[in-house]
Amino acid sequence: MNTFGNLFRITSFGESHGKAVGVIIDNCPPLIELCEADIQVELDRRRPGQSHITTPRDEADQCEILSGVFEGKTTGTSIAVIIRNKNQESKDYGNIKDVFRPSHADFGYDQKYGIRDYRGGGRSSARETIARVIGGAVAKKILKEKFNIDIWGFVDQVGADKFKTIDKDFIEKNPLRMADEANFAATLQKVEAVKNSGDSIGGGVQVRVQNPPIGLGSPVFGKLEAELSRAMMSVPATKGIEFGEGFDLSAMHGSEANDPFVVSSESSNSEHQSNKEFELKYKTQRNANGGIIGGISTGDDIWFRVGIKPTSSIIQKQTTANKAGENVEIEIKGRHDPILVPRAVPILEAMTAMVILDHVMLHKAQCGL
Amino acid sequence: MNTFGNLFRITSFGESHGKAVGVIIDNCPPLIELCEADIQVELDRRRPGQSHITTPRDEADQCEILSGVFEGKTTGTSIAVIIRNKNQESKDYGNIKDVFRPSHADFGYDQKYGIRDYRGGGRSSARETIARVIGGAVAKKILKEKFNIDIWGFVDQVGADKFKTIDKDFIEKNPLRMADEANFAATLQKVEAVKNSGDSIGGGVQVRVQNPPIGLGSPVFGKLEAELSRAMMSVPATKGIEFGEGFDLSAMHGSEANDPFVVSSESSNSEHQSNKEFELKYKTQRNANGGIIGGISTGDDIWFRVGIKPTSSIIQKQTTANKAGENVEIEIKGRHDPILVPRAVPILEAMTAMVILDHVMLHKAQCGL
Amino acid sequence: MNTFGNLFRITSFGESHGKAVGVIIDNCPPLIELCEADIQVELDRRRPGQSHITTPRDEADQCEILSGVFEGKTTGTSIAVIIRNKNQESKDYGNIKDVFRPSHADFGYDQKYGIRDYRGGGRSSARETIARVIGGAVAKKILKEKFNIDIWGFVDQVGADKFKTIDKDFIEKNPLRMADEANFAATLQKVEAVKNSGDSIGGGVQVRVQNPPIGLGSPVFGKLEAELSRAMMSVPATKGIEFGEGFDLSAMHGSEANDPFVVSSESSNSEHQSNKEFELKYKTQRNANGGIIGGISTGDDIWFRVGIKPTSSIIQKQTTANKAGENVEIEIKGRHDPILVPRAVPILEAMTAMVILDHVMLHKAQCGL
Amino acid sequence: MNTFGNLFRITSFGESHGKAVGVIIDNCPPLIELCEADIQVELDRRRPGQSHITTPRDEADQCEILSGVFEGKTTGTSIAVIIRNKNQESKDYGNIKDVFRPSHADFGYDQKYGIRDYRGGGRSSARETIARVIGGAVAKKILKEKFNIDIWGFVDQVGADKFKTIDKDFIEKNPLRMADEANFAATLQKVEAVKNSGDSIGGGVQVRVQNPPIGLGSPVFGKLEAELSRAMMSVPATKGIEFGEGFDLSAMHGSEANDPFVVSSESSNSEHQSNKEFELKYKTQRNANGGIIGGISTGDDIWFRVGIKPTSSIIQKQTTANKAGENVEIEIKGRHDPILVPRAVPILEAMTAMVILDHVMLHKAQCGL
Repeated sequence: MNTFGNLFRITSFGESHGKAVGVIIDNCPPLIELCEADIQVELDRRRPGQSHITTPRDEADQCEILSGVFEGKTTGTSIAVIIRNKNQESKDYGNIKDVFRPSHADFGYDQKYGIRDYRGGGRSSARETIARVIGGAVAKKILKEKFNIDIWGFVDQVGADKFKTIDKDFIEKNPLRMADEANFAATLQKVEAVKNSGDSIGGGVQVRVQNPPIGLGSPVFGKLEAELSRAMMSVPATKGIEFGEGFDLSAMHGSEANDPFVVSSESSNSEHQSNKEFELKYKTQRNANGGIIGGISTGDDIWFRVGIKPTSSIIQKQTTANKAGENVEIEIKGRHDPILVPRAVPILEAMTAMVILDHVMLHKAQCGL
Repeated sequence: MNTFGNLFRITSFGESHGKAVGVIIDNCPPLIELCEADIQVELDRRRPGQSHITTPRDEADQCEILSGVFEGKTTGTSIAVIIRNKNQESKDYGNIKDVFRPSHADFGYDQKYGIRDYRGGGRSSARETIARVIGGAVAKKILKEKFNIDIWGFVDQVGADKFKTIDKDFIEKNPLRMADEANFAATLQKVEAVKNSGDSIGGGVQVRVQNPPIGLGSPVFGKLEAELSRAMMSVPATKGIEFGEGFDLSAMHGSEANDPFVVSSESSNSEHQSNKEFELKYKTQRNANGGIIGGISTGDDIWFRVGIKPTSSIIQKQTTANKAGENVEIEIKGRHDPILVPRAVPILEAMTAMVILDHVMLHKAQCGL
Repeated sequence: MNTFGNLFRITSFGESHGKAVGVIIDNCPPLIELCEADIQVELDRRRPGQSHITTPRDEADQCEILSGVFEGKTTGTSIAVIIRNKNQESKDYGNIKDVFRPSHADFGYDQKYGIRDYRGGGRSSARETIARVIGGAVAKKILKEKFNIDIWGFVDQVGADKFKTIDKDFIEKNPLRMADEANFAATLQKVEAVKNSGDSIGGGVQVRVQNPPIGLGSPVFGKLEAELSRAMMSVPATKGIEFGEGFDLSAMHGSEANDPFVVSSESSNSEHQSNKEFELKYKTQRNANGGIIGGISTGDDIWFRVGIKPTSSIIQKQTTANKAGENVEIEIKGRHDPILVPRAVPILEAMTAMVILDHVMLHKAQCGL
Repeated sequence: MNTFGNLFRITSFGESHGKAVGVIIDNCPPLIELCEADIQVELDRRRPGQSHITTPRDEADQCEILSGVFEGKTTGTSIAVIIRNKNQESKDYGNIKDVFRPSHADFGYDQKYGIRDYRGGGRSSARETIARVIGGAVAKKILKEKFNIDIWGFVDQVGADKFKTIDKDFIEKNPLRMADEANFAATLQKVEAVKNSGDSIGGGVQVRVQNPPIGLGSPVFGKLEAELSRAMMSVPATKGIEFGEGFDLSAMHGSEANDPFVVSSESSNSEHQSNKEFELKYKTQRNANGGIIGGISTGDDIWFRVGIKPTSSIIQKQTTANKAGENVEIEIKGRHDPILVPRAVPILEAMTAMVILDHVMLHKAQCGL
């Protein structure tokens, strides 16, 4: 399925070395100011070649809006956005055409469909995430303008090193999108060493929704954690997700894990509360559950972590099997992205933004009549 | 949303202290032998009061099939199954009616809907998982009979203790549903101590799909990890999920994480392969990715872990806030489930079975013409 | 598929001679006052045995709400409603078990699923429409209370006779649900004659939505005519639908068919207009298009006609084929409903109400942020 | 909503005078040979300017496949197809910008969204049907190649004149797509007269599915008539639909309307029958129900009629209202399509093909395990 979302929906297309990649955004609210530049800023954050430690594919990735915007505003009709691929010339893919790269999607696509666009990953390439970032850019803009909701993420783990400090301002100032300046220089050196050895390294991303409305989420199957998990785990290379204190909560007793509600004097984003009598403001003591309890947002900031595996395409020689049923050696040439994690940040933010907007709309529909 | 699934779908209803809980199963294949006993066996595994370490609510939870089965076989029409609640008499819920129990769904429901069935959790009670187990029992039966697929889970963590040994035969022989007999006695003692102190404890469940077809999963948004994550994270008390080596992969280099394909002499479940030319059998060296790569099942066993937080209802006195905006003390009486994890096993199995069957059907539809 | 609706959704179950029929209503707005009596009033309008000219099956069809309502109000969670069947004792169905009744669903079910509940129609029985009427009763109540929208229908054709007069007050006063008192007596005589001869007769129903909001409908595939057509044509025995002047428009020139907008002094239901600058009120000269143009409601009353074929179960001897591949004679005993059309009225109203409410919610979600 | 279909799905975009129109086809079976020419042949049948009696907009409408096809075959991933608009230069739309054309979608879009692309109809233009024809071309090809199913339509009514003769070979040989050669010349003269007077004329289209599988359709809400009705009534200018003898059945007695099954010696397309024991072949005596009974295809040819209103854009002066709330006169210049009906044929065929393929896939998923 290439459609995502219940009400705010995207449908995506494109192979890494096909003619174009793109997206149709459906059910977008009308009268939102929108132009290519609003989208391009997020695409540029996703783009390869932003720094010396990412894959050098240097495509401008200029997006073009084909429909759904008139005189600078969304019209409520479907918005198509495409990006023409430039790297589509026929290279020699002989070395991967018939070989199943280790931990790569090649094998699955070949077996499922009986055919696979073997040029650079085809549909399984991370290039499909362009469509996600486009949809997310629109969702982010609406959430910010209409509800003052901010969605941002950062790298909180590189390899086995986890970072606790969160300095939001530092994130976009460093190529690793870390929020911990003190640990940045050493970590960069580590990544450079990985790159030079032809290897890759994994890590983790934390995503935060600041100032979320209370009441988002549709139990029992459309709980907000369920919807966010589905969104995150559909992104290439993700292997796990945890909300708030996550797996650490599993190791606790209830008396430790429980997180009491407290009456707060701070204002919350009560736009979406059904029961307007709740003028009182609540928060939890330490936000252990990541802003979601029972599948519904509590008004505390939403936060969760996503684990990302190291790029499977490495320069080092590896063993694997081929279509002919032989165990063979493989050496992947050319592209090599030693660390995916920093570029995953805008993608995970985009998916989060779409889920949040979708649930704002769902909530409005059911509880806002 | 109370509907789950794309093709094999369940729609669920019921509050913990309402008249009944139940489910409608839609789009079930016809001509499957089905009776109440097929479902009851799974419900009995979910039921409270199975042992001295779980909540004592002792309902028989006898299910009744109302439709969709004729002369012992499914007819292809929607199958309704209900269970009448017995514990619905009016107790005094005064102590939780206006108080938001810590880490409980009370607050979210109240704020989202402006109304909440405060009797014992209402819709947010784990009692809604009965519907899931019913749907899963049917899916499991179909997967076993038609494709010889086995789905089973076990407790691989209690509190901070993780267990590596997997002895499948031991699981249903112990009240903790552990698969590690050597560690069972000590763990039971620990849980009994937790219970006696009026506290609760979290843990983890591992789920496995044995002999899965190759090619399940619908990229890019219906990837199998995405669909399974959504399913698991919709279950009450889940806080995280990881596939295969999961978060451990995030800490690795690519050269460690990568898991080569090898040509195998074992037979795989190739029922669903589109390209029948693949007579050759493949597997990965260590199944690091949990049987799913690029969102598509590889034919290796599928396995993932779910982190479950400790029951939030504990007997100890706690602080929290009430509807009147006061910070108050609360003491929850009566029901107390010191450990949810063993009873989560059949629920997570059920959700897994429904996702797998759904994707078998999706695959058949697209690639089986 | 046994689920209907995008946001306001019902999922239905039940065979005519199974244990029960029922429905789960999902995504219902919270805080709506609701009790069994609100639903029963519509069920009583659908019920067989209301008069001497309908089928005599005299079931009380008492509904029971199982969930989703607490202290007299909807809670926003799924609402299950069931009705136990009384007529489920084993009769002798020998004469229809292996025979395909002419123009009946027997054949299709048998061939599609390879199995069929042959007792009295099974799932294809009009008894499944109980679920529709329940969902519609809830939708109607919400539309009336929140938006002052009235939905009503009447029989505008019996056999070949069409009636033009619309006297709303007369409809529920006559067993044929005609709105044309002058033609009632003669038509009743005609129907009685049909009944006495063991035959049946078809007809037409007109449905009207009075005071609809402007702007309902989701082009290009969720146009309001498309959604209403799907709803109506899913009701048993419907064979055609036309909006406004319908097929008559097909026979016209554009200069006749076109229906100019005129500025009106009447107030319209502008609750849902996005652009609040439209204080001006418009209507069309003769409402030729049935209140919908380009798939979007214009604020004029919505109206359409549905053609209903005569009951296929007649008492007269007929020829047909059986499962053994023989051409045989068949004589259907017992139940005989000489005219379905009056009982179709509440069913079509119910489907209409659900579509309208669904689109009110969809519109709110997209255009109401 | 701009997505259509359950399994075989299209998502559509584009305004008449925007940059492009196009479609994403999702869930297409893999390994189908497909190239632009396969699609272009259907687009050319839809294209304006095919003859002197249609609108003269003479765009080549050359389609371009952007994804989902590799080495001439579908890969199972999403297929994007676009057509760049040529007529997008800024004309003077002053005369329709603020005026609501009679029986046009202008008014609804303006009121619903508060904004409207007023250039030539924008999203409500029939130009959006290009996306439908593209999706239908792919569906048709699959149905023909895999199941030998033929889908074709013809004009069976022009203005008030209905034609009974069906000569399939004549249809594509005349600009009116009539199947009745004897009445063609006189009808053409009539249409030419309409054109010369600056007026337009309506009509009807009959669509037929030849050699359909038995058992398509998903009761109770996804009945085949319901799904086809939704599809047809989402096409611009359609005002009614009837299946088989349709509204004529409403005027009959049951003894006339009923259509007995007969054992046949002809072979039927039993590919999709669940119960393979049915080697016997059945048909109905006169196919009165249009090949669908109880929402399920019987194996008889499927046939239905769609009523289409005359083009609302006529050259004659008309009265209507404008945004300022004035009753005004309007004279539409330039484009003028005296008869839509012949060009509706390929569009309705396309929608039919997608519904049929979708239900073939749904049936395979549920009943083909």
